[in-house]
Amino acid sequence: MNDYIYGKNAVLEALSSENSRVNKVFIQKGIGLDTRLKKIIELCKDLSIIFNFTDFKKYKEIFGDEVNLQGVVASVSPVQYKDFDEFLEENPDRYRKIVILDNITDPHNFGAIIRTLAAAGYDGVIIQNHRSVSVNATVEKISSGAVNKVPVIKVNSIVSCIQKLKNNNWWIIATDAEGDNNYLDIDYKNMNFAIVLGSEGDGISKPVLKLADYKVNLPTQFESLNVSCACAVIVYETVRQISYT
Amino acid sequence: MNDYIYGKNAVLEALSSENSRVNKVFIQKGIGLDTRLKKIIELCKDLSIIFNFTDFKKYKEIFGDEVNLQGVVASVSPVQYKDFDEFLEENPDRYRKIVILDNITDPHNFGAIIRTLAAAGYDGVIIQNHRSVSVNATVEKISSGAVNKVPVIKVNSIVSCIQKLKNNNWWIIATDAEGDNNYLDIDYKNMNFAIVLGSEGDGISKPVLKLADYKVNLPTQFESLNVSCACAVIVYETVRQISYT
Repeated sequence: MNDYIYGKNAVLEALSSENSRVNKVFIQKGIGLDTRLKKIIELCKDLSIIFNFTDFKKYKEIFGDEVNLQGVVASVSPVQYKDFDEFLEENPDRYRKIVILDNITDPHNFGAIIRTLAAAGYDGVIIQNHRSVSVNATVEKISSGAVNKVPVIKVNSIVSCIQKLKNNNWWIIATDAEGDNNYLDIDYKNMNFAIVLGSEGDGISKPVLKLADYKVNLPTQFESLNVSCACAVIVYETVRQISYT
Repeated sequence: MNDYIYGKNAVLEALSSENSRVNKVFIQKGIGLDTRLKKIIELCKDLSIIFNFTDFKKYKEIFGDEVNLQGVVASVSPVQYKDFDEFLEENPDRYRKIVILDNITDPHNFGAIIRTLAAAGYDGVIIQNHRSVSVNATVEKISSGAVNKVPVIKVNSIVSCIQKLKNNNWWIIATDAEGDNNYLDIDYKNMNFAIVLGSEGDGISKPVLKLADYKVNLPTQFESLNVSCACAVIVYETVRQISYT
């Protein structure tokens, strides 16, 4: 099954990305060709990607009413999720760092988190098959193409994935409002680690929390941060410690 | 003019906040009264706030089709923006820290930023009257009530506001991808400072950037962070330095 990306900027980005997953581009028949549309056509030619001028009525039939009038849609292969066991067996000559998302369902937050992880040079993000976000069109858009940069790993069970990580000498750091360590007091250097983030309503589920080596809190004077903001704060603290101390 | 807040959780939060701005609550006639609705009615009685059971047809007329079926709406006084000169003249017995938003238009980002500032104990956020977000229903919802905690200051011109801050011994720290200081290399202790954030597309406008004492970058390996995530990273670095070093 194909996914679709809408809008000139999003399609341009998708065509420009290193591992372009674009299969075909549909341009609305009769629409004026501005600079961005011309660039899109040029890229399609360079990359030997088929593009069609599609009748607007047919276009609506295919893509539904939610399509805006930016007049361009790309059909893309779904993101290739990375296999967890394959990821685990890879043996880079440095410590690795990942984020595990437990029950995060909001695509805006997921997209912003992927973008942060790409910026911070993280090695991947793990999500669960059920009751969790997938990489959909919103996530792609919000991530600004970072989904093509950060491996997304989908597992059937976060619990057994964490057990495997622990067996392979990874450290599990769960964020928890009740956690007994300030996130600043952990030494993130010289280890493989996974930072676990839970949903904003319920936090991390109990069986997952139980497996954590550290439970860290982010001190606040008023409620909690948005989960993508909390993720950015902790991820950049790990980068500060690893690269600047 | 009144603003409206929709949904059980949002209305409950608004009624529970210290400076409740709720004037009146409308409950959909005939809707079943669950725990949260009962709690809402109880709070209205305690706070002497009028509540009405409103016919659904009339309800749709008043609030439009976008109202979901959670069946409760609160009319609230608009957020009281704080006066800039008043803010400037206040003289707390400690250094103050604020954020200035230059051309941020996305209410999700604005709401998440206010929430971060409340959590970090910042003293305020400055926005511009024109070409900028205001505190609307989306911002309120995303901020989780933090708009009642962090003073929002609206000015006609960011440029003249920054000039006044500088005349009053505030330091201006602009975030800029081309900035020549790593954000980690600034000493945020022992000064009043304002962190300036620009729009994701265009960054900070040139006249504003010119006035900055420091231009700081946030090192990334792939594009930039979402602006609310970038804000969280820098704000929590200032808190780390001030409170933990």
